[in-house]
Amino acid sequence: MNIVGHLINGEIRCDAASTQAVYNPSTGEVTKQVALASVATVEEAIACAQAAFPAWRDTTPIKRARIMFKFKQLLEQHAEHICELIGEEHGKISHDAAGELARGIENIEYACGVPELLKGEHSCNVGPNIDSWSEFQPLGVVAGITPFNFPAMVPLWMYPMAIACGNTFILKPSERDPSSTLYIAHLAKEAGLPDGVLNVVNGNKEAVDTLLNDVRVKAVSFVGSTPIAEYIYSTANANGKRCQALGGAKNHAIVMPDADMDNAVNQLLGAAFGSSGERCMALSVAVAVGDVAADALVAKMQQAMKGLNVGAFSDKSNDFGPVITAEHRNKVCGFIDSAEADGALVVVDGRQVQVEGYENGFFVGGTLIDNVTPEMDSYREEIFGPVLQVVRVQAMEEAMQLINDHEYGNGTCIFTRDGEAARYFSDNIQVGMVGINVPLPVPVAYHSFGGWKRSLFGDLHAYGPDAVRFYTKRKTITQRWPSAGVREGATFAFPS
Amino acid sequence: MNIVGHLINGEIRCDAASTQAVYNPSTGEVTKQVALASVATVEEAIACAQAAFPAWRDTTPIKRARIMFKFKQLLEQHAEHICELIGEEHGKISHDAAGELARGIENIEYACGVPELLKGEHSCNVGPNIDSWSEFQPLGVVAGITPFNFPAMVPLWMYPMAIACGNTFILKPSERDPSSTLYIAHLAKEAGLPDGVLNVVNGNKEAVDTLLNDVRVKAVSFVGSTPIAEYIYSTANANGKRCQALGGAKNHAIVMPDADMDNAVNQLLGAAFGSSGERCMALSVAVAVGDVAADALVAKMQQAMKGLNVGAFSDKSNDFGPVITAEHRNKVCGFIDSAEADGALVVVDGRQVQVEGYENGFFVGGTLIDNVTPEMDSYREEIFGPVLQVVRVQAMEEAMQLINDHEYGNGTCIFTRDGEAARYFSDNIQVGMVGINVPLPVPVAYHSFGGWKRSLFGDLHAYGPDAVRFYTKRKTITQRWPSAGVREGATFAFPS
Amino acid sequence: MNIVGHLINGEIRCDAASTQAVYNPSTGEVTKQVALASVATVEEAIACAQAAFPAWRDTTPIKRARIMFKFKQLLEQHAEHICELIGEEHGKISHDAAGELARGIENIEYACGVPELLKGEHSCNVGPNIDSWSEFQPLGVVAGITPFNFPAMVPLWMYPMAIACGNTFILKPSERDPSSTLYIAHLAKEAGLPDGVLNVVNGNKEAVDTLLNDVRVKAVSFVGSTPIAEYIYSTANANGKRCQALGGAKNHAIVMPDADMDNAVNQLLGAAFGSSGERCMALSVAVAVGDVAADALVAKMQQAMKGLNVGAFSDKSNDFGPVITAEHRNKVCGFIDSAEADGALVVVDGRQVQVEGYENGFFVGGTLIDNVTPEMDSYREEIFGPVLQVVRVQAMEEAMQLINDHEYGNGTCIFTRDGEAARYFSDNIQVGMVGINVPLPVPVAYHSFGGWKRSLFGDLHAYGPDAVRFYTKRKTITQRWPSAGVREGATFAFPS
Amino acid sequence: MNIVGHLINGEIRCDAASTQAVYNPSTGEVTKQVALASVATVEEAIACAQAAFPAWRDTTPIKRARIMFKFKQLLEQHAEHICELIGEEHGKISHDAAGELARGIENIEYACGVPELLKGEHSCNVGPNIDSWSEFQPLGVVAGITPFNFPAMVPLWMYPMAIACGNTFILKPSERDPSSTLYIAHLAKEAGLPDGVLNVVNGNKEAVDTLLNDVRVKAVSFVGSTPIAEYIYSTANANGKRCQALGGAKNHAIVMPDADMDNAVNQLLGAAFGSSGERCMALSVAVAVGDVAADALVAKMQQAMKGLNVGAFSDKSNDFGPVITAEHRNKVCGFIDSAEADGALVVVDGRQVQVEGYENGFFVGGTLIDNVTPEMDSYREEIFGPVLQVVRVQAMEEAMQLINDHEYGNGTCIFTRDGEAARYFSDNIQVGMVGINVPLPVPVAYHSFGGWKRSLFGDLHAYGPDAVRFYTKRKTITQRWPSAGVREGATFAFPS
Repeated sequence: MNIVGHLINGEIRCDAASTQAVYNPSTGEVTKQVALASVATVEEAIACAQAAFPAWRDTTPIKRARIMFKFKQLLEQHAEHICELIGEEHGKISHDAAGELARGIENIEYACGVPELLKGEHSCNVGPNIDSWSEFQPLGVVAGITPFNFPAMVPLWMYPMAIACGNTFILKPSERDPSSTLYIAHLAKEAGLPDGVLNVVNGNKEAVDTLLNDVRVKAVSFVGSTPIAEYIYSTANANGKRCQALGGAKNHAIVMPDADMDNAVNQLLGAAFGSSGERCMALSVAVAVGDVAADALVAKMQQAMKGLNVGAFSDKSNDFGPVITAEHRNKVCGFIDSAEADGALVVVDGRQVQVEGYENGFFVGGTLIDNVTPEMDSYREEIFGPVLQVVRVQAMEEAMQLINDHEYGNGTCIFTRDGEAARYFSDNIQVGMVGINVPLPVPVAYHSFGGWKRSLFGDLHAYGPDAVRFYTKRKTITQRWPSAGVREGATFAFPS
Repeated sequence: MNIVGHLINGEIRCDAASTQAVYNPSTGEVTKQVALASVATVEEAIACAQAAFPAWRDTTPIKRARIMFKFKQLLEQHAEHICELIGEEHGKISHDAAGELARGIENIEYACGVPELLKGEHSCNVGPNIDSWSEFQPLGVVAGITPFNFPAMVPLWMYPMAIACGNTFILKPSERDPSSTLYIAHLAKEAGLPDGVLNVVNGNKEAVDTLLNDVRVKAVSFVGSTPIAEYIYSTANANGKRCQALGGAKNHAIVMPDADMDNAVNQLLGAAFGSSGERCMALSVAVAVGDVAADALVAKMQQAMKGLNVGAFSDKSNDFGPVITAEHRNKVCGFIDSAEADGALVVVDGRQVQVEGYENGFFVGGTLIDNVTPEMDSYREEIFGPVLQVVRVQAMEEAMQLINDHEYGNGTCIFTRDGEAARYFSDNIQVGMVGINVPLPVPVAYHSFGGWKRSLFGDLHAYGPDAVRFYTKRKTITQRWPSAGVREGATFAFPS
Repeated sequence: MNIVGHLINGEIRCDAASTQAVYNPSTGEVTKQVALASVATVEEAIACAQAAFPAWRDTTPIKRARIMFKFKQLLEQHAEHICELIGEEHGKISHDAAGELARGIENIEYACGVPELLKGEHSCNVGPNIDSWSEFQPLGVVAGITPFNFPAMVPLWMYPMAIACGNTFILKPSERDPSSTLYIAHLAKEAGLPDGVLNVVNGNKEAVDTLLNDVRVKAVSFVGSTPIAEYIYSTANANGKRCQALGGAKNHAIVMPDADMDNAVNQLLGAAFGSSGERCMALSVAVAVGDVAADALVAKMQQAMKGLNVGAFSDKSNDFGPVITAEHRNKVCGFIDSAEADGALVVVDGRQVQVEGYENGFFVGGTLIDNVTPEMDSYREEIFGPVLQVVRVQAMEEAMQLINDHEYGNGTCIFTRDGEAARYFSDNIQVGMVGINVPLPVPVAYHSFGGWKRSLFGDLHAYGPDAVRFYTKRKTITQRWPSAGVREGATFAFPS
Repeated sequence: MNIVGHLINGEIRCDAASTQAVYNPSTGEVTKQVALASVATVEEAIACAQAAFPAWRDTTPIKRARIMFKFKQLLEQHAEHICELIGEEHGKISHDAAGELARGIENIEYACGVPELLKGEHSCNVGPNIDSWSEFQPLGVVAGITPFNFPAMVPLWMYPMAIACGNTFILKPSERDPSSTLYIAHLAKEAGLPDGVLNVVNGNKEAVDTLLNDVRVKAVSFVGSTPIAEYIYSTANANGKRCQALGGAKNHAIVMPDADMDNAVNQLLGAAFGSSGERCMALSVAVAVGDVAADALVAKMQQAMKGLNVGAFSDKSNDFGPVITAEHRNKVCGFIDSAEADGALVVVDGRQVQVEGYENGFFVGGTLIDNVTPEMDSYREEIFGPVLQVVRVQAMEEAMQLINDHEYGNGTCIFTRDGEAARYFSDNIQVGMVGINVPLPVPVAYHSFGGWKRSLFGDLHAYGPDAVRFYTKRKTITQRWPSAGVREGATFAFPS
C-alpha cells in the first residue's frame, strides 16, 4: 500500500517504522498509510532547516518572491490533481477543493509582494545628524501545525509568507489527509526553493512535541481546536517561542427583520453546509430577530435544503461530501440527538442520510434545527458538521449579547439593509471577523485572519499584514557618524 | 511619616494596613512609607477600570489625544518637582531625571498622534461590490508593571498610548520610588482624564499576581529583570492575556581600530556610568578589537574617569548618584570582587567611594575592569551598576560572536567610521537595538523599543508603532449590501 | 486709523504706501486699513524666508513639532480674542468663528505628529548587501494664498504642516479680513518659531504675482475661486513650482425617500446657512428623489427656517451674520432674482432682511428656492450666500447624473438609511468628499481635503497625509559598501 | 517592407497613410516602416480606452493583478524574442536588453501587489459614531509617452501600474524602435487584458498633441528630454490633466580619496558606457577629489577601457552597441570636439571607431575626457553618448557645489568608505536619486524613480509607491447613520 512520507531537505523520506491509516471518507476504506515521524526524523528536519537558514536569510527578498511567483504558476498548472488528492482523503467536492486551493494561492500572491511588505521605517534627524530606522528580520526556523479540514489552504496561510520573509519552515500537517499537502510542498521545490527551506513531517503528538520543545524552532503557527491551541500556545511560550494558535468557533448570523431573506437563505446554505460544515468559519447558528423573521427563515431554509446533494467528491453535482471519519460522523449525529433531547426541533434531519453506492461513507446530511437555546450542548460546543441551528430572539441587542457571551469569537454576520444596524453591530460585537451580509467573512489574503476570545491565542492574526510581523522581528538601528573625517580631510590633504 | 497611596478612580487612597519603607538612597534614610495594596484594593482598581472602559472606548480618539496634549503641558510645567521626587527616592541627579522625564514626555507626544496611528486599512472591491476594512479596537482593562530605575519614563512608555487607544489602565509601579509616578498619574487626572481610566496601585508580588490572575485584565506590559519577566509572561499567557515582558541586558560596544577614540570614550562615560548604570540600556561591556585599540581605550577611559563625580541628587554638578539600595550596592561590589578574583584587572575601582556628608548613602564609584573574559560571572550576568568591563578580542567577527552568544540581546553599539563595518554589524548582530557610534541606541518614541533573545518576551516591542498594535486588537469587517433596495425602489415609486 | 501690517522676519512691518479699507460687514463701516505689499516688500519676505531655510531644515523634526505643540496652546489661550477679530472683519458669529479656529487647531495637532509622518521607507537587500531608502526633504520657501471666508482655518491648513516639514513660508492672506490671520501668525513666533520661518504679507494681485514669479518660491498652495485657482495653477507650474489650487464648489445633497427627514432638515440648516453660505463646503443644492420627499423637505425646511436668526457677530444668539461686502450681497440677491425670473419658486426670501441697529450691514437672510432646474444660472454657478436651492428628480440615478455633470466636484452628501444606496453613491459619484448623512463632509485633519473636477487643480489634496507629500520631495538613496575594509583589516592587523 | 502598426482595442491596426523609417543602427539600414497615427486614429484609441474604462474600473483589483501575474509569465517566456527586437532597432547588446526587460518586469511584479497598494485609510469615530475613510479611485483614460532608449522598460514603468489601478491606457512610444514595445503590449492582451484597456499608437508630435488636448485623457506620464518634458507638462496642466514629465540628466559621481578605486573604475565602466550612455541615469561626469585620486582614476579608467568592445547587438561579447541615429552620432562626436576645443584632454577617443562588417553602423567608441570644467558646453549639456568626463576638484564641498549648481538633478553617486562622508552627501545633495558606491542608483521597482530640479516636472515620481498615487485620485468618505431604525424597531415590532 502506498505510504505517504515526509519532505526533508528536498527529498521525500519514508520513515515507515510507524504509520497510520489514511481513509477515503466517501467509501470508508483505507487507501494509504502515512508515515509518522519519530523524534529523530523531526530533529533531522529541524537540523536541515537550520542549515538552510543563513543562505536563505541572505537571499534578497525579490529573489525569494520570484520563487513564490513560480510556485503560484505550478499550483495553477496542477490544480486538478491537487483537488483530486484533497477529495480522496478529505472528501470535499472538487469545486470546494478548487475554492480552497484558490484561497491558498491568494496567500502566495500576497507573499509575492514581500519586498514591499518588509519595508522598515526610516527617520532622518531623530537627533542632530542622527538617523534611525527599523528592519524586519526573519526569525530562523519556524513551524506550522495544520488541521485536516483545509489540507491545501491552511498550510499556504503560513509557509509562503514565512519563507518569503527569509525563514525556513517545518510543516506538520494533519495525518488524516496528507497527500495534497505533501504534493504542494514538493511543487515549491520545483519552483526553485532551495532544499531545506521547506520541510514537511507527518506525525502525531510526538512530532508536535518535538517541534514545541526544540530550541532551534523560533515560532509556531497552529490551526486546530481550542484545547490543542491552548496547549500549543502555552507550551511554545514557556519554551521561549513566538506562537499564534487558532482554535474553535461558533459563528452566528443575525437575521434582521429587514434582511433580504432570499439572499440570506441562499448565503446560509453554502455557509452552513459547504464542506460539511467542517470549517472554522462555518456559519452554524442563525439568530433570527423576531418570530416573523424566524418563521420565514426556517420555512425558506427547509425548502431550499431539499435541493442539497450530499455525496462523493468525484461527482461535481454534489454540494458537499462526507465528514472526515466515522467517529466524527457519530459525534455530529450525537449533537443533533442531544439538541432534540433538549427540546429543540429538528426541522430537517441529516442523521439517516444514505448515499447510493457509498453506503460505507461517512455521510451526514444537511440538518436544520429550530428553537435552539443557549444552554444546550449543541449550542455551546462546536459541532463541525452540516448542522444549522436557529435561535429565536426578540431584539437585536439580545442577539448581540448571545454572541458576545459565547466562548468563541471567530466570525459572525448580520443580514440587514440598514446602515445603522450594520455599523452598531460591527462596532460592538466581540468577534474578530465580521460580515455584513457576508456569511463567511474570511478576510482576503491582503487582510488578516483572526478570531477573538478563545478562538485565537496570540497577539497577531494569521496571514496578511500580520503574518509579516509574526514571521519577523523588529531591529531598530540608530546611527550617527563621528565628525567629518575623509570629507574634511580631503580639503586639508590637497591644498591649492 | 508620609504614606504614599494609590490612585483609584481618580482618588488618592491610602490602604495603610501594609506598608513598606521608601529610602532616600543618597542618605540611606527611610523617608516615607508606601502602602502595599491588598488583593481587595487591586480588585477594586480593576473594577473601576472596567467600569470606566465603555465610555472611554467610545470617546473619540481625537478627544483622548487632546487629554494627552494637556497632560504633556502639565508635565512640562511641573518638571522640576517631578525631578526632585525622582531624586529623593531613586537618587539620580536632576539633569538625569530631567532627561528621563523628557523621554517619557516624548511618548505622550507620540500618543497625541493616536488618530493617525489607529487608522485601519480599507479595501474596495475585495470581491464585486464587497469592501473590507480593519479596525484596531482597544482591549479593555490593561496593566503595566514597572521598575524602580525609571519611575517616570517607563510608566509613560505604557499608559499614554494604552489610554489613547481607548483602554483603561492599572499601573503597578516599583514600590522603591513610588512618589514621582503617583504624582505624574495625578496630573493625568488634572489634564482631564476621566476617573477610573488610569489607576495606580502600589504593591508587591500579591498585587502583581492579582493582576495576572484576574480575568478582567486583558493585557500586561512589564519591564524588569529577566526571571520576573519570564514569570510574568508565562503566567499572563496561561491566563489568556496578551503580554510583553522586557527583561535584563548586557549591552556591548565594539570599539574598532578606526574609531574616533576620543568621541568613543566621551560617549562611553555617559553610557556606562549615567544613572549609576541602572539602566537596561547601560553600556556595560566594551569589546576592543586589537590591543592597540584596547590599550588606547583603557588609558583614555582611566583618564576621563578622574573627572566623574558621584554624589547626592541635589548637587547638579554630580554625574551620577547612589544605587537604589544597600543590598544592591553590595551586589554590585560583589561582581567587582568576583571579576578581580577571576583574574580581571580592576583599573578604576569604585568600591570604596565615600561621599562627604552622605556617608550612609548607597554609593558605588565608577569602575573600569580590563581583561574580562566571557566565562566570568561578572560578564555573564547583568550588574546594573556603574561598572564598565573591557573584553579584548583580535577580530571583529570574534567580537560579534561574543555578543551573539550572550543570553541577552537588548542593545549594542559599534564605534567605527567605516560604512561597511557598520552595515555588516547591524545586519548580522543578534540584538534588537543597534547603535552605530551611538552607545545608548534607545529608539526615539516614534520607533519601538525592544531587545531580542532573553531580553524581551513577546511579539511586539514597547512604545512607538508596536505599542499601538499591542494595545489594540484587529477586527476585520467584510461588507456587501444586498441588491438595490431604496435606490431602485425610488425609481419605481415615482414614475413620471 | 489702525493699519494692519505684514509679518516679516518676525517683525510687524507697515508698508503704508498703499492700503485698502477693511470693513466691519455687520455695520458696513470701514474700521481699519490694510497695508498692500509692494513687490519689494514681498521680495524681502522671500529673502528672509530663504535665509531662514537652511537652519530650519536642519532643525530636527521633533523640535519643529514641539513649536507646534506650543502654538496650539497659545491659540487655545487666545481663542476668544481671535474669534472677535474674525467677527469684526468677516462677520461670522462667535460660535462659528470658534468652530473655524478649532478646525484650524486640528491641523496644528496633526502637524505635531510630523516625526511619524516624515518616515521614509527602508529596504534591506534590494540587491546583495545593497540597501535603499527614501527620505522626504523640505522644498525650501513655499507660499500660501488664502481666502476671506476662513481667515483663521485655511492658513492653518497650510503653514503648520509646511513648516513642520522643514520649509519656510510666506502667507498672503485675504486683504478683506487680515487681522486674525496676522495675530495668529504672531503667536507662532511667540511659540518659538525662529524669525523668517513664517512670514505674512498682505497684498493684492501684485503680491500674488510676485510670489508666482519668484524662482526662490518652490511651491504654492491656494484656496479661492476656480478662475483664480486655474490662473495660479498654470502660472505656478509654468514657473517650475509645485502647486495645489482649490477652487469653487456646488455641493449637492441627495435626499432619498427613506431619509430620516427631521434629521436631514436639521443638518441642512447648518450646512446651507452657516457662515452665510460663504464656505466652499456649503451645501447649496438639495436634490430630492420623488415628490413625496421633495414636498416634505420643502415644508419642513420652510418651517425650520422661521427660527433662523441673522445678525451681528457680537450676539451669540444669531445663527449667521452678514456676507463679506455690499457687492457680494448684491451678487447673492442677483442670483435669487435670476432663479425667480427663470421660473423657480422662492419659498423663503432673504433678500429684504433688515437687522435692527445694523441697517447698513451686508445682510442676506436665509433663502429657500424650490423647483430649480439645471440650466438656471443660479444652479450652474456658485452663489456663496445663504441660499438653498431644491431640485426635484424622480430617481436616484438622475440625482447622481446631475452631480456628475456639474463643473464642480468638491463635496456631496446623501441622506438615506440604506447601506446599498450609500455604497453605490459613494463609489460612483464624481466628487472628492462624500458624506453619508453628513452634509458637510469636510475630512478631519488626519485625512485630506480635496475636490475633484474643477474644484481642485493639482495631484495632492490639502492638509492631512497629502500635505506631507505636497510640502516635501522624495529622495531615494541606494547604498552598497565596498568589500570589507576595516572589518577584515582588523583581523589581519592583529594576528595572534 | 514590414510596417509596424498600432494596437487599438486589442487589434493591430495599420494606418499606413503616413509612415517613418525604422533603422537598424548597427548596419545603418532602414529595415521597417512605422505607421504614424493621424488625429483620427489617436482619437479612436482614446474612444476605445474610454469605452473600456467603466467595466475595467469595476473589475476587482485582485483580478486586475492576476492579469499582471500572467503578463509577467509571458514576458519571461518570450524574453529572447523581445531582446532581439530591441537589438535590431535600438542596437543594444542582448545582455543589456535582457537587463532592461528584467527591470521592466520588476514593475509588473510590483503591480501584482496592487490590492495591497490601493488600501485606503479607515478611521472609526472621527466624531461620535462618525467614520471616515479614503479610497483611491482610478482616473479614467491615461496616456504615456516614452523615449527610444528603453523601448521595453519605460513603458512598463507606466502602464502595468496604471492599468492595475483601474485606468485604461494609451501608450505613444518612440517611433525609432517601436517593435518590442508593440510586441510586449500584445502579450498583455494574451495575458487576458480586455480589449481597449491598453492601446498603443505610434506617431509624432501630432499624436502627442492630440493626447495632450483631448479632454478624455486625464493624465500623462512622459519620459524624454527636458525641453519636451517642460512642453508636455505645461500643456497637460493647462488642459486640466495630471502630468509627470521626466527630462534630462547630467549624473555626477564623486570619487573620494578613500574610495576603493578598482571597484569604482569597474562600476564606472558600466555606468558610463553601458547602452552607449543613452540612459538618463548614465554616469557621465566623474568628479575626483584631489589630484591623487584624479590621476589614479584616469590612469585606471584608461587601462580598463582598452577591454571595452563596441559592436553589433547580435554579438554577445560586445559591451555596447551603436547610438540610435547617424545624427545622434554626430551630435555626440560634436560634444567631444567642443570639449577638446575648450581645452579638455581627450584621454581615450571614440570618435573614429570602426566596427568590422558594420561600417555604416552609428558607432561611437568609449571616450574619456579629463580636465573638464563647468563652463564647457560638454559639461553643461546632456551628451547621451559613451563619454565619461572627469572634473578635478580639491575638496568634497566643491564637488557637491558643482552638482547642486547644475540644471539637472536626476542621479548622483559618491565613492567612499566613510560613513560620515556618505551621510553628509546624501543629506545635502540636491539630486533625487543618490548612490553610495552605487553608480546607477536607479531605485528598485518598489521604490520610486525621480530626479529633482529640471530633471522632473511634477509632484510625484515614476513607478513604485508614487505611481499608485499618480494614477489614482483620493476620495474621502465621511459616514454617520441616523438614529437606530431597524435596530430598535425590531424590539418594538415583536414584543413577547
